[in-house]
Amino acid sequence: MKAEIIAIGSELLTPFKLDTNSLYLTEQLERLGIPVVQKTVVGDDHERLKAAFAEALKRSDLVIGIGGLGPTQDDRTREAVADLLKRKLHRNQEVVAAMEERFRARGRQMSEVNLRQAMVPAGADWLPNPNGTAPGLWLKTKEERIVLLLPGPPPELKPMFEEHALPRLRPRAPRQALVTKVLKTVGLPESEVEQRIAPLYREVTNPETTLLASPGQVEIHLRARGSEAGEALRRAEELAERLEQALGEAVFARGPETLEQVVGLYLMMRGATLAVAESCTGGLVAERLTNVSGSSHYFLGGVVCYSGKLKSKVVGVSDALLKRKGEVSVEVAESLAKKIRRRTGAVLGLGVTGIAGPTGGSPDKPVGTVFISLADAHRVKSEKHRFLGDRERIRWQAAQAALDLVRRKLLK
Amino acid sequence: MKAEIIAIGSELLTPFKLDTNSLYLTEQLERLGIPVVQKTVVGDDHERLKAAFAEALKRSDLVIGIGGLGPTQDDRTREAVADLLKRKLHRNQEVVAAMEERFRARGRQMSEVNLRQAMVPAGADWLPNPNGTAPGLWLKTKEERIVLLLPGPPPELKPMFEEHALPRLRPRAPRQALVTKVLKTVGLPESEVEQRIAPLYREVTNPETTLLASPGQVEIHLRARGSEAGEALRRAEELAERLEQALGEAVFARGPETLEQVVGLYLMMRGATLAVAESCTGGLVAERLTNVSGSSHYFLGGVVCYSGKLKSKVVGVSDALLKRKGEVSVEVAESLAKKIRRRTGAVLGLGVTGIAGPTGGSPDKPVGTVFISLADAHRVKSEKHRFLGDRERIRWQAAQAALDLVRRKLLK
Repeated sequence: MKAEIIAIGSELLTPFKLDTNSLYLTEQLERLGIPVVQKTVVGDDHERLKAAFAEALKRSDLVIGIGGLGPTQDDRTREAVADLLKRKLHRNQEVVAAMEERFRARGRQMSEVNLRQAMVPAGADWLPNPNGTAPGLWLKTKEERIVLLLPGPPPELKPMFEEHALPRLRPRAPRQALVTKVLKTVGLPESEVEQRIAPLYREVTNPETTLLASPGQVEIHLRARGSEAGEALRRAEELAERLEQALGEAVFARGPETLEQVVGLYLMMRGATLAVAESCTGGLVAERLTNVSGSSHYFLGGVVCYSGKLKSKVVGVSDALLKRKGEVSVEVAESLAKKIRRRTGAVLGLGVTGIAGPTGGSPDKPVGTVFISLADAHRVKSEKHRFLGDRERIRWQAAQAALDLVRRKLLK
Repeated sequence: MKAEIIAIGSELLTPFKLDTNSLYLTEQLERLGIPVVQKTVVGDDHERLKAAFAEALKRSDLVIGIGGLGPTQDDRTREAVADLLKRKLHRNQEVVAAMEERFRARGRQMSEVNLRQAMVPAGADWLPNPNGTAPGLWLKTKEERIVLLLPGPPPELKPMFEEHALPRLRPRAPRQALVTKVLKTVGLPESEVEQRIAPLYREVTNPETTLLASPGQVEIHLRARGSEAGEALRRAEELAERLEQALGEAVFARGPETLEQVVGLYLMMRGATLAVAESCTGGLVAERLTNVSGSSHYFLGGVVCYSGKLKSKVVGVSDALLKRKGEVSVEVAESLAKKIRRRTGAVLGLGVTGIAGPTGGSPDKPVGTVFISLADAHRVKSEKHRFLGDRERIRWQAAQAALDLVRRKLLK
């Protein structure tokens, strides 16, 4: 069984908006062992919609349309599919009742225009929408191919898919299961990751291995197939283990966890607390740490000492040191780490100072130079980095390296 | 003239990766007055690629393929298009020379495998790649339709498109120009924005108006057509002005600027400086402010006082006040604003305290309660908000409201 996704909406053909629902659906379908072989984005245009569904149905057994089920004249998915499959549209009284009930529960009256959403093609099943008015539609063609129409807003699409479409798809899915495993690494460039693991995965077609690089991070995705989930999982885990041995400490997660979540988990496990004095990252380290729910248990806070004045007045770095060594220096990074630790009473103090650019560099300390220090009660560990890229990329890489320094400290 | 985009690569059919190049290309094409009518994502598969290009060429005059031009066997775009258009592939010595030069300049030897990238279909023009090895390709079909093949990495695609494809497209573009104008608002819910401006834009089809809402922000996109750019621009600006009058101070930008850029600009214009003491936003306000290049001129820094201890020890809020009023209170927000201002010597001090959730709420102060204060030498202005949504959404809305408080102060 093969699937295609058609994302519908003229706004998806503007420079401002991407279809993101297809990522979710692809993940759900992969779990059933159903690969997505093509995706199409098409506007709310009757003829184009009809043609897109016609072509997709020639190629694939399952065609999922997303969006265009709203109540207004702009929304044409229902009509185009009914026209293509030569089905008459009828007002479905059950749908009308469900919609009226929804409006009543909110103390509002349903308007006439909503009745369009109650039109169901002959022979189609409708799928309840727990979070909106538009029902989903499930149609079988005479060639036994499936057309599934879902509403576009993710809070409507996801529960409808899971509660009403998945149970219908499961018995049709192949016996084959597909399992995805992820390894996430920090601190190694993509070429180094590739060099270490290529000999291990290159000749293996199951699992299939993909590398995805972002600033300061490389993710390795393993997609394994098997006759049942257990077998696929075993295959994925076997290869993952071998790759992990080749990558060593650079692997920080074996699942969806972010680096800041992993750092938080380690801090929690050790009952340790952390405070940060950061300059060039401008609050990014603190922001990432506090983006994790529960972070108040281990993150005390920090100082964004963007100016020299704050480094001295608020964190307590000595003016003499700032003058002698310069704001971007290993000595200042160490002092930031030690002082913020003492000032806040945290177990660990992290200091970051550097030049994010685009200006401020010198031949001696070019843009991208970043010093990171981590202090505990006994000692300070420091690193010097030279990151490449634009301001945003440099800041992100610096935050990655800073979080990673904490992670590796806690690993031991 | 109508365009389609085909994004090529099996990784774009996984749950992990979206095609984003098409947004950039759509914007570029719209400026030429060429609408994008369909987008397709297809894997690196010879037959599927061939079929996708064949279908697109039936519908559209310009078909842009992105990706699949690499040196390995996985990359099949060149071959599929040559096969479809029945063109022989020849090794092009100019391309070979350009590639060798590139390798030489980096002190490396070109490998055999790269020669695949020098294969050019008969009758095709090749486009130089300033940032990579794969050349672009420009082919004309016998029906005078254009196939443009571009490399996938954005740092290669963008300069190639602008330097080598745009000059070829311009003379073919319709006389019609398309201009997009954006108004960005902060602080008003989408329904309120809609209510105020719907009567003004609803009946107008040129410009076409679209609303895009994100947490704490609503963008209004106006797309105007005209026989030349000046006319389209005039149409867009006329409507934009009327909408702006209806929206008043809520409009913070008339272009691509972010809220933090606008705040930075205002601070710079007034020669003012800002410091922040933020709790529930966890560094997000500082991170956004410092993400703007040049922010060191007006942003002194701040304290992420995630724990009560930091509020008192580092910012200087009195322990008695914290105990009496609670960490989340208007009094503590005011004290944060005043103390951080005095401690750093900034012209303006901003204080944020609240409950981002998911835990920590009470009947009295539910999750989403946020107090924001802004202090200057003479007085403090404070606001109480109640934001809805998950942790990330609440934090983002709180940061929006905090930045907006600074903006409105400086407007006067």
